[in-house]
Amino acid sequence: MFKLDARLEADTLLIHDLPLCRVLLMNDSQFPWLILVPRVEGVTEIIELSDEQQQQFLAESAQVSRLLQAQFTPDKLNVAALGNVVSQLHIHHVARYKSDIAWPKPIWGAQPVVAYSQDTAAELVTALKKALAE
Amino acid sequence: MFKLDARLEADTLLIHDLPLCRVLLMNDSQFPWLILVPRVEGVTEIIELSDEQQQQFLAESAQVSRLLQAQFTPDKLNVAALGNVVSQLHIHHVARYKSDIAWPKPIWGAQPVVAYSQDTAAELVTALKKALAE
Repeated sequence: MFKLDARLEADTLLIHDLPLCRVLLMNDSQFPWLILVPRVEGVTEIIELSDEQQQQFLAESAQVSRLLQAQFTPDKLNVAALGNVVSQLHIHHVARYKSDIAWPKPIWGAQPVVAYSQDTAAELVTALKKALAE
Repeated sequence: MFKLDARLEADTLLIHDLPLCRVLLMNDSQFPWLILVPRVEGVTEIIELSDEQQQQFLAESAQVSRLLQAQFTPDKLNVAALGNVVSQLHIHHVARYKSDIAWPKPIWGAQPVVAYSQDTAAELVTALKKALAE
């Protein structure tokens, strides 16, 4: 049975379950940052998903990418499956700006997280949930 | 017409052209590191590829991922489309080890490149070309 990794659970806010992936908002107000977690037990690499699951992942990754572009108008998307710290397969989708604090470097492990205020987080979760469920 | 970005060309060695993507070896002996560049002009995000091209990219990404696992037996793969420095769409596929110099951090922009010796590069290119063409 699928169980979300404890570190991912602690660092994120739940947005929505798509057919394959759980969509999480990283609780870091410095970047619009969504994480897709395929709800499949014991998987650490994209190529460990079945062909059907890989197809579905591709579709959901595209949906989330378009959502980030529509909602945040970034200069660039960063899409990455790293997993060096948390091995449970999860794929980062980050809206990057030339003006953001880490640009042009990658964001991971580069600067301390700045959590959203409770109000902002609640608004953002509601807006993203609505956009994804449409 | 597709033309490889000058920075990518300078930093890498040509391995092979798959049906969609050019496969490059990053000239950094610290990590087994392949880069897929879809031979499509003017594309900076995966979602800008057509549906058919996205399918083909998924297949070629899986092929390259399996090749890295087979040849290098890494602890983890890192697969990432960043493009903050070079905007031409290119997708990193990196074999990571718990013992590598950057672990568990991402490798990009973190430490100076250490180029392969000419002999090692030639051997590696030959071996990878053969494995990809099979």
